[in-house]
Amino acid sequence: MEHTSRHYEMELVELKEKILFVGGMVEEMIGSAMRSLLDRDPELARQVIDSDPRVDVAELEVDHLCLNLLALRQPAASDLRFIATALKIVTDLERIGDLAVNIAERSIELNEEPPLKPYIDIPRMASAAAGMVRQSLDAFVKRDPFLARQVLRSDAAVDELNVQLFRELLTYMIEEPKNVSRALRITFIAKYLERVADHATNIAQMVIFMCEGRDVRHPGAQKRAGGES
Amino acid sequence: MEHTSRHYEMELVELKEKILFVGGMVEEMIGSAMRSLLDRDPELARQVIDSDPRVDVAELEVDHLCLNLLALRQPAASDLRFIATALKIVTDLERIGDLAVNIAERSIELNEEPPLKPYIDIPRMASAAAGMVRQSLDAFVKRDPFLARQVLRSDAAVDELNVQLFRELLTYMIEEPKNVSRALRITFIAKYLERVADHATNIAQMVIFMCEGRDVRHPGAQKRAGGES
Repeated sequence: MEHTSRHYEMELVELKEKILFVGGMVEEMIGSAMRSLLDRDPELARQVIDSDPRVDVAELEVDHLCLNLLALRQPAASDLRFIATALKIVTDLERIGDLAVNIAERSIELNEEPPLKPYIDIPRMASAAAGMVRQSLDAFVKRDPFLARQVLRSDAAVDELNVQLFRELLTYMIEEPKNVSRALRITFIAKYLERVADHATNIAQMVIFMCEGRDVRHPGAQKRAGGES
Repeated sequence: MEHTSRHYEMELVELKEKILFVGGMVEEMIGSAMRSLLDRDPELARQVIDSDPRVDVAELEVDHLCLNLLALRQPAASDLRFIATALKIVTDLERIGDLAVNIAERSIELNEEPPLKPYIDIPRMASAAAGMVRQSLDAFVKRDPFLARQVLRSDAAVDELNVQLFRELLTYMIEEPKNVSRALRITFIAKYLERVADHATNIAQMVIFMCEGRDVRHPGAQKRAGGES
């Protein structure tokens, strides 16, 4: 069945490429949403919002590809895990796209008022979070748990930036009531970015589990779950 | 292969029961987190936080069950979709558990300060969101797209409550700086509940797609995705 097995390999490659493609799309959406915020460019924000349906289509295509592989190819253990992980990962990617849309929406609102303060931590958070998404997908397609572990280490830095920014914005709000609505919107953007990083972390944890059968999502949970053979 | 097929049926029943079990757990966590908030009971909030690892174990068990079913039983088209959907759904449930933990954390913080105002909309949002989770899982195990569509209709009501509450809390913050930190925490709780409802909506959309092969997640996306056969 030389022919069939070559087809199968090609479908697996297609699945990998598709996942990277969706990852590239949502990464670009985060980048554009951030630029729309920093450059006060509502048109760019609207482009991010308009591009969301393309991510949704890509998610469906990945689901479809995975179901076909499962139905027709009876993949062996390690490929089975790879495909099951792809099914889960693409949901995380789709939600990262939604978060980019949320950032774009807040950016449009913020553009309607004068700037509150120069953005310093937010662009840092955004580039860290987008980097985590890229690295987690890289770990997935390479089936590389070491790379995935680097993503886990980055998450703490994003959380730290978020806490720091939150404290600063809280001070702005308490000092001056007219700052409240803008500071709140910036707080929300920081939260969205933190959640992007959380999704990347989830992807990385699933990759480690896929590669090692060991659960880093929930330390200590493995024993009680009866292990993974 | 009478014996094998009976085993297979039993494993599918086990999968359904396990999903409902995890759903029951996270629903109870939301209920307890809300009670800890309303009764100002930090001990109950801590119990919610402590119970989170049990959800994590249950998620692993569902993943394990799904992978085994896929590897050993070569399920037919409709069961394949059911199992693939279970893999995705359990991730949503685990994140609902995390959101209940977030509510419990904010409840502990709020308990350290005097009450800001009586809670009216928040308990409504919580019971609507928990009801959506229950109904979406019910639709899943019954493979009932009609039930799933009811969940979609409830989501707008939760969003509406959230917008209303946000406006009210914004007024509190602007009027009185010393309200800011408490009002912010309540805003966060409302956001968590809105996200619980979003997860239930995601589950319901996946159930409709599973049953009908038609995509309600992304209207208009279906055609470009090449359809689902």
